[in-house]
Amino acid sequence: MRILYETLQAEFKRVLLKLGFTETKAQQIAIIFANNSRDGVYTHGLNRFPVFVQYVNEGKVKPDAQPVADEGLGLLERYDGNLAPGMLNAQFCMDRAITLANEHGMGCVAIRNTNHWMRGGTYGWQAAEAGCIGICFTNTIANVPPWGGVEPRLGNNPLVIAVPREGGHVVLDMAISQYSFGKLQQYHAAGNELPLPGGYNKAGELTTNAGEIMETWRLLPIGFWKGSGLSLMLDLLVTILSQGRSTAEISKSKAEYGVSQVFICIKPHGTAQNADLIEQIIAYTKTSGLEDPEKAIRYPGEGTLATRNKNLQQGIPVDELIWAKVKAL
Amino acid sequence: MRILYETLQAEFKRVLLKLGFTETKAQQIAIIFANNSRDGVYTHGLNRFPVFVQYVNEGKVKPDAQPVADEGLGLLERYDGNLAPGMLNAQFCMDRAITLANEHGMGCVAIRNTNHWMRGGTYGWQAAEAGCIGICFTNTIANVPPWGGVEPRLGNNPLVIAVPREGGHVVLDMAISQYSFGKLQQYHAAGNELPLPGGYNKAGELTTNAGEIMETWRLLPIGFWKGSGLSLMLDLLVTILSQGRSTAEISKSKAEYGVSQVFICIKPHGTAQNADLIEQIIAYTKTSGLEDPEKAIRYPGEGTLATRNKNLQQGIPVDELIWAKVKAL
Repeated sequence: MRILYETLQAEFKRVLLKLGFTETKAQQIAIIFANNSRDGVYTHGLNRFPVFVQYVNEGKVKPDAQPVADEGLGLLERYDGNLAPGMLNAQFCMDRAITLANEHGMGCVAIRNTNHWMRGGTYGWQAAEAGCIGICFTNTIANVPPWGGVEPRLGNNPLVIAVPREGGHVVLDMAISQYSFGKLQQYHAAGNELPLPGGYNKAGELTTNAGEIMETWRLLPIGFWKGSGLSLMLDLLVTILSQGRSTAEISKSKAEYGVSQVFICIKPHGTAQNADLIEQIIAYTKTSGLEDPEKAIRYPGEGTLATRNKNLQQGIPVDELIWAKVKAL
Repeated sequence: MRILYETLQAEFKRVLLKLGFTETKAQQIAIIFANNSRDGVYTHGLNRFPVFVQYVNEGKVKPDAQPVADEGLGLLERYDGNLAPGMLNAQFCMDRAITLANEHGMGCVAIRNTNHWMRGGTYGWQAAEAGCIGICFTNTIANVPPWGGVEPRLGNNPLVIAVPREGGHVVLDMAISQYSFGKLQQYHAAGNELPLPGGYNKAGELTTNAGEIMETWRLLPIGFWKGSGLSLMLDLLVTILSQGRSTAEISKSKAEYGVSQVFICIKPHGTAQNADLIEQIIAYTKTSGLEDPEKAIRYPGEGTLATRNKNLQQGIPVDELIWAKVKAL
């Protein structure tokens, strides 16, 4: 079943207004959720919307809260997110980082007590649209065991890197686990096996069964010990720079809210030369022989753009049960 | 066979002086190579030294070259490395980034036409010693196929993230391939199988035989498609910010020289609170049950510090053939 972009967005807005969001905020949030589904990230679009509503109802996301700046810290800005909606806080922070980068070449904005930003790529695209290199990352509740351990003590801390490019920005949006929790839910819901092992089952064995992994919360980090180390570093950076809650603290509260995030923007010099350099790099990767002649090599963000165009034309595929649930809210 | 740190360093310096390096530069380079072996990174210490000498003799590394700044670009500094020794250029750039961070909260320094920095961790430790968060990365010659491809078109582009910590800095130093080329050489030389598949053999199958991977140059990226995307992003960042050679250009020249690098420094606020936050995060990871009761969970850099202390006391393990080779230079 496919739904028009406008219908999806309007439905989100209707529910958000009912929850007490202002006209402006309801519009902003509805656009972000609708765009995530539009770009094929259904796990953080429609499918996540009911959880967001639940968090608002539980007081973990506060509709009228605003980020408030700590004392002036120059190019290193720091905000208290006051449990406002994570995507509005994130959009605000990336916007500040863009402003700093336009003025000084670069900027870094950290925020504590914020909420799930849904799809990290949103803020990468935002930076790239503004002509900036954007780098951002967040911590999460513990869902990955540290290397050598069997219990989750690290977040899968998504990392986003975006480079502006005419004809389609290059945007990497990846969790540090081999599969994001949203992706596991997707495979589990569809009853499909993962293409590669994504974590451990109760017996401590690697498995391609998403449901088994969702039981143990033992997601496999990318590159084994390397992803484990990278996750720890990202948690250190967001916690120190925001003076916020670490994965350790978030995990104690058993629910993923009040997380910490960092947004870095760099304004590159030499737009014309950069365009040539970017095309040179992308073109070179595509000169490789293919593993499967039917599957072209793609740069990060290339698939997103193709999905976006298709979904805008044909409507956005929705899970009928979730769509019915949202309409009943 | 173990050699005293001082002996190793003096021997490097002797050879470097003979190659035409000034007293100061010979001393700086000798310390970096000796420190890499001291910290257990033998692949980029003694074992790499003969290759460095060869590159100097071939004119790919220029003993009397200096990095030269491009026009004033504010907090985004950019240098031409002029093919000076990669580790001196890297040390210089991280030093500039530290200075910028001390003045403005953060700084970003890019360099083109530089050379192999040997062990990236060196510059992470340098930033941490100065009380800064340090992030740096480099491109390399192509040695990893892009996801979906069978021929190397991406570098394994090492990434370093360092956080200053009393009692031992936290320093992640990782190549984007599951195993660095240096690590493959180490396993191959010792005749050992890799603990996990590290790349593909000529038949296109995943293999734990380091020698087979060194034949195909098809190293496996961490996290499969994720590492492939991350490698591309790092190449884009170093190339755009330095206006230097991409992995595509480096690969055309068949030898790994004239690479591009980026050094970012952030000076965090609140040293005392940070110390507590860092200990909280590290302590939490260590509360996980262990996979193997004999193998403790370690933070990135913890093993390095243990190896350093042991090697300073007992001497540094050296490959006798390479040691003899260096003494004969």
